[in-house]
Amino acid sequence: MEVFIEPIGRLINEFSKLPGVGKKTAQRYAYKIINMSEQEAKEFAESVLYCKQKVRYCSVCGNFTEDDVCEICRRREKSVICVVKEPRDVIALEKLHEFKGVYHVLHGVINPMEGIGPNDIRIKELLSRIDGSVTEVLMATNPDVEGEATAMYIARLLKPMGVNVTRLAHGIPIGGELEYTDEVTLSRALSERKQM
Amino acid sequence: MEVFIEPIGRLINEFSKLPGVGKKTAQRYAYKIINMSEQEAKEFAESVLYCKQKVRYCSVCGNFTEDDVCEICRRREKSVICVVKEPRDVIALEKLHEFKGVYHVLHGVINPMEGIGPNDIRIKELLSRIDGSVTEVLMATNPDVEGEATAMYIARLLKPMGVNVTRLAHGIPIGGELEYTDEVTLSRALSERKQM
Repeated sequence: MEVFIEPIGRLINEFSKLPGVGKKTAQRYAYKIINMSEQEAKEFAESVLYCKQKVRYCSVCGNFTEDDVCEICRRREKSVICVVKEPRDVIALEKLHEFKGVYHVLHGVINPMEGIGPNDIRIKELLSRIDGSVTEVLMATNPDVEGEATAMYIARLLKPMGVNVTRLAHGIPIGGELEYTDEVTLSRALSERKQM
Repeated sequence: MEVFIEPIGRLINEFSKLPGVGKKTAQRYAYKIINMSEQEAKEFAESVLYCKQKVRYCSVCGNFTEDDVCEICRRREKSVICVVKEPRDVIALEKLHEFKGVYHVLHGVINPMEGIGPNDIRIKELLSRIDGSVTEVLMATNPDVEGEATAMYIARLLKPMGVNVTRLAHGIPIGGELEYTDEVTLSRALSERKQM
């Protein structure tokens, strides 16, 4: 015998599809929906559909947008392009309010183990954006094996085009402690030490 | 400047209403929705509406049901009634597949601090269910102050009606260790010790 009646079981199943959500958490979420007013539940459901229908990717940089070209591409100065893996990385950087250039979202990184090659991510689109007005391309892929390899691969393509290619700095996180810093990071911080 | 475009911001806001979900988690959920196919997102949204529309409370016991009277009330033997605080408690007990009687969901417990009195929960409805065929009422409210007080209050009403009122046992959880059992539980386990 099923413990949950069908509509609850179905909703629990849907909530379980969210990242990091197991059966117990999905259950709590379903109870919350049942305790909402009709109106609240409707707004919840509609915001899911609305988000899915409205959000697409900018035809220039690949970032989230409601229009064909995103607001950042329309308004910002285009001489510096920051290359990231995912649209969520754009949001992380934008929260700083420090970077004033534009972005290029690769929508993935090169990962031979998963069969993702250079042609499966938006590298061609990046190259086609490079013209005389671009002075710097800042590689901001994640500091893991795939992110590093992708950054190196792209840097090798860009350098012959006369663009200055830079990379986000690696090192000890601010507020971190030497003792608890992992060895790879510490060794990077050492080899990339800077003049004071 | 808003970091998120409006449809994403709105969805993050809705997800944040779920219990235990902060901005970061809501963001992850929103990204997942964006990465779903149109069809998947539609099914997700529909299951929310469907659950909200279909699920109501059993007119007899107050448990979740799709019909007027729930399956448990329709099929089970009615001489033992188990009294719980919330419909989710029914599910917890049903998972055991051990209790063969019916339930009565109070939809709350007496809590003077929050202004919830005996008339605000389904006590009247419980009393009206007591007839000659009911031999036992098992109080299964939570073992906290409000749950205990509510159980005692109801027991006092039921006893003059000639019903056998019982309570879930308290004591050391199976697999627990004496050393780490809290004092209140340990003291209860001691005072309620049983003949071996």
